[in-house]
Amino acid sequence: MQKILVANRGEIAMRVMRTAKEMGIKTVAVYSEADRNMPFVRYADEAVCIGPALSSQSYLRAEKIIEVAKQTGADAIHPGYGFLSENASFSRAVSDAGLIFIGPSAHSIEVMGSKIGAKQAAKKFNVPMVPGTEEPLKDVDEARRIAQSIGYPILVKASAGGGGKGMRVVNSDNEFEEQIRAAKSEALNSFGSDDVFIEKYVGAPRHIEIQLMGDQHGNYVYLFERECSIQRRHQKLIEEAPSSCLTPDIRKAMGECAIAAARSCNYYGAGTVEFLVDEDLNFYFLEMNTRLQVEHCVTEMITGIDLVKEQINVARGNKLSFTQDDLTINGHAIELRVCTEDPLNNFLPDTGRLEMYKPPKGPGIRIDDAYEEGMDIPIFYDPMIAKLIAYAATREEAIERLCRAIDEYYIKGIKTTLHFGKWAVRTEQFRSGNFDTKFIDKFFRPELLQDTTPDGTEIAAILAAHVWEKNRKQDTAVTTNGTISKWKMNRS
Amino acid sequence: MQKILVANRGEIAMRVMRTAKEMGIKTVAVYSEADRNMPFVRYADEAVCIGPALSSQSYLRAEKIIEVAKQTGADAIHPGYGFLSENASFSRAVSDAGLIFIGPSAHSIEVMGSKIGAKQAAKKFNVPMVPGTEEPLKDVDEARRIAQSIGYPILVKASAGGGGKGMRVVNSDNEFEEQIRAAKSEALNSFGSDDVFIEKYVGAPRHIEIQLMGDQHGNYVYLFERECSIQRRHQKLIEEAPSSCLTPDIRKAMGECAIAAARSCNYYGAGTVEFLVDEDLNFYFLEMNTRLQVEHCVTEMITGIDLVKEQINVARGNKLSFTQDDLTINGHAIELRVCTEDPLNNFLPDTGRLEMYKPPKGPGIRIDDAYEEGMDIPIFYDPMIAKLIAYAATREEAIERLCRAIDEYYIKGIKTTLHFGKWAVRTEQFRSGNFDTKFIDKFFRPELLQDTTPDGTEIAAILAAHVWEKNRKQDTAVTTNGTISKWKMNRS
Repeated sequence: MQKILVANRGEIAMRVMRTAKEMGIKTVAVYSEADRNMPFVRYADEAVCIGPALSSQSYLRAEKIIEVAKQTGADAIHPGYGFLSENASFSRAVSDAGLIFIGPSAHSIEVMGSKIGAKQAAKKFNVPMVPGTEEPLKDVDEARRIAQSIGYPILVKASAGGGGKGMRVVNSDNEFEEQIRAAKSEALNSFGSDDVFIEKYVGAPRHIEIQLMGDQHGNYVYLFERECSIQRRHQKLIEEAPSSCLTPDIRKAMGECAIAAARSCNYYGAGTVEFLVDEDLNFYFLEMNTRLQVEHCVTEMITGIDLVKEQINVARGNKLSFTQDDLTINGHAIELRVCTEDPLNNFLPDTGRLEMYKPPKGPGIRIDDAYEEGMDIPIFYDPMIAKLIAYAATREEAIERLCRAIDEYYIKGIKTTLHFGKWAVRTEQFRSGNFDTKFIDKFFRPELLQDTTPDGTEIAAILAAHVWEKNRKQDTAVTTNGTISKWKMNRS
Repeated sequence: MQKILVANRGEIAMRVMRTAKEMGIKTVAVYSEADRNMPFVRYADEAVCIGPALSSQSYLRAEKIIEVAKQTGADAIHPGYGFLSENASFSRAVSDAGLIFIGPSAHSIEVMGSKIGAKQAAKKFNVPMVPGTEEPLKDVDEARRIAQSIGYPILVKASAGGGGKGMRVVNSDNEFEEQIRAAKSEALNSFGSDDVFIEKYVGAPRHIEIQLMGDQHGNYVYLFERECSIQRRHQKLIEEAPSSCLTPDIRKAMGECAIAAARSCNYYGAGTVEFLVDEDLNFYFLEMNTRLQVEHCVTEMITGIDLVKEQINVARGNKLSFTQDDLTINGHAIELRVCTEDPLNNFLPDTGRLEMYKPPKGPGIRIDDAYEEGMDIPIFYDPMIAKLIAYAATREEAIERLCRAIDEYYIKGIKTTLHFGKWAVRTEQFRSGNFDTKFIDKFFRPELLQDTTPDGTEIAAILAAHVWEKNRKQDTAVTTNGTISKWKMNRS
């Protein structure tokens, strides 16, 4: 592998190219017209515009991207996450073009891309499932009998679904028929198929996932778990590794189940098996993500493994470069997704210009970001503009380090989730580790952010610029707690 | 401890304050008139100007600094490194003022501040020494007899010396008398004392040091070694941990000797024992630094320990928060000192404005820096403007990551050691781990940097800014390899 085309944008394009450079591999960026000025375009050895801003006209154009790979002499394509990363046809088309797809086979993507198919495959390998149906429901009466045998509340889910669409909680027999019909109609509208299935509703679950890697020779390792329970509308906001609730035995059991799920579809590359974990630490297979995750960084921090490097290694056909016994957990990492959303206004996306942008630095801080000061944030893509990862010896220290870094992170011109993140990790629930996926619904209210908003610091910084320019000869300093200290100094 | 005054500037002031913030401790910065605009001044909760640019009129004013600590209600002082950090009188004056000195006792500083005193103390605890005299030489004839018994070449060193001053290599009996007289005269002029001693000259030594921590209850741990052999005129340029040459047995032996040296002066706090290591891995006590070192970061990366946090913990009178058994080496870290020096011109200091300044980010990169884009670099202080630390699972990966980060580090307006660093770590000698303190003298020639200078990238970046502005509608992208790629795209 001599040259990799990265079929993605923003921070994940930077992430992949950084490792490629460290490995001495050339890089090709593809970009939309809206992304022309972005750092990832400049960072690549070559960059090619593939169309207008809309993803459907640029980052989702599989044929165009493969054509660019051939034109530029790239011999491999890394899909990042999102866009074409879990598109089996793309994986197949890349292979058919004689290029290496840095990801799993089309077969694995297909199996795990269907919620029902994934469950059927994983179940054969004894991966524990939430009790429920394995096949699409045929008729309402059969479905009701199954629901009764599982016991309410139950969850109705679209087979092809995602993001909460086509998903309904049914609390009793009375509302069963109505909810099933509603779910099927929503599924048909959203996904073109009205196939639905039902399963036991786990009320206050934690979302914990296992990172795994497999090679093309049947070897597997798991790289422990990531706790991703701090979510809003099924979108993860804060992730950490390790989880605060797992025991070593359960960690091992989940890791082995994740590998079993991967074996069930002859998986290779980096993959993630998501589990629901209930209050008694029973865990149930949720789904498998057949790509690198946004939150892969926290796993890198606690294991020391470069997951992108290992993806490339495995895609080359090499064996895994480490074994399960080589892996240990060192320290604790927490990631905050820095999104251009306004937590004070129902997390509505904000747009505009990054008038000032100064990310934090120093011990234990990793920044994977996408934009530079002065840039406009395009409205066409994911609102995540950066990932802030704090690493320390203990969870408590990682929390305080994250907060220190949030205070240091200076963004002006656009609203972000930074101060929401500080509030969240400083809650008693987060600190104690006693939380679940309902955390935000249960505890967050915008007025709780009053203490953490950056107004004081921001005003001080602006003032500082003026004061320093005007009074360079005076003993005046403006400090970050928003006050002005003035000391009459005796210089004798 | 509620509020720490940091009696220092630049990156180390930021470093200390970051940890203080993570611990919920308030911070006071003191600064000279030349440093008014620096980030560390803004970063502190309070900041006080203590005098003009010259250190003797600001950062070295012990009384003034203690007065400011009292005025601001600080209850502790962290001295950083350099300036007052190894000044026993300052440590004593801080204690006498009823404040906590975050560092060792005045007694420890005094003992280890004298090269001969340090040797006498450490030798009693069986720390191995380079064969030589323990006391200042009384007369030339006695000295010659000792030199003959040790065997040439020998080294003559000023007792109060440092930085190579008052240091002479004597190769034979013939030149002995002349060199001793020259060394004594130089010592008198530089340090106010003509006391000199002699020791066996170790020709091509490595400089390897052990980081240790002690508490006020007699407990000690060593945090493994740092390899600091890449030096120029006794100034370290590149440091790494662990060393590429130590075996576990020698590492343990050196760690235990370092603790013995610390015990010899009832040391507490963070300290470093420097050793000379010869080709056969014999190691000899060189000196003890009674403060945090510039290069402490590489130890933090491989151990996960926050050394500043532990300094504060110990200064509070607490026991060490970890034991030797808690410590393991994970991965490999390399630090490059980013200095405003011109490697193409004999490392002459460069001054001017940081017209552009964009530090690298992403996996495994830590930046501890001092300035921001647009700032002037004052001429009054150390030329080190930043430390770039690369961390990875293996030494080889850390080297490549450091090089990737150097390529990403964009500094315009002032010359730095960045590209020298890239050349150095990519030499066959560095890669193989087979080098010593003569590395730069032996292998470096300015013309070797031709391949690594940033001209191509810089030109490309400047071009890029223009091209993008002018041709935002065209499919033109300028790439970081310094060429312009132009693709005619079919957008159908």
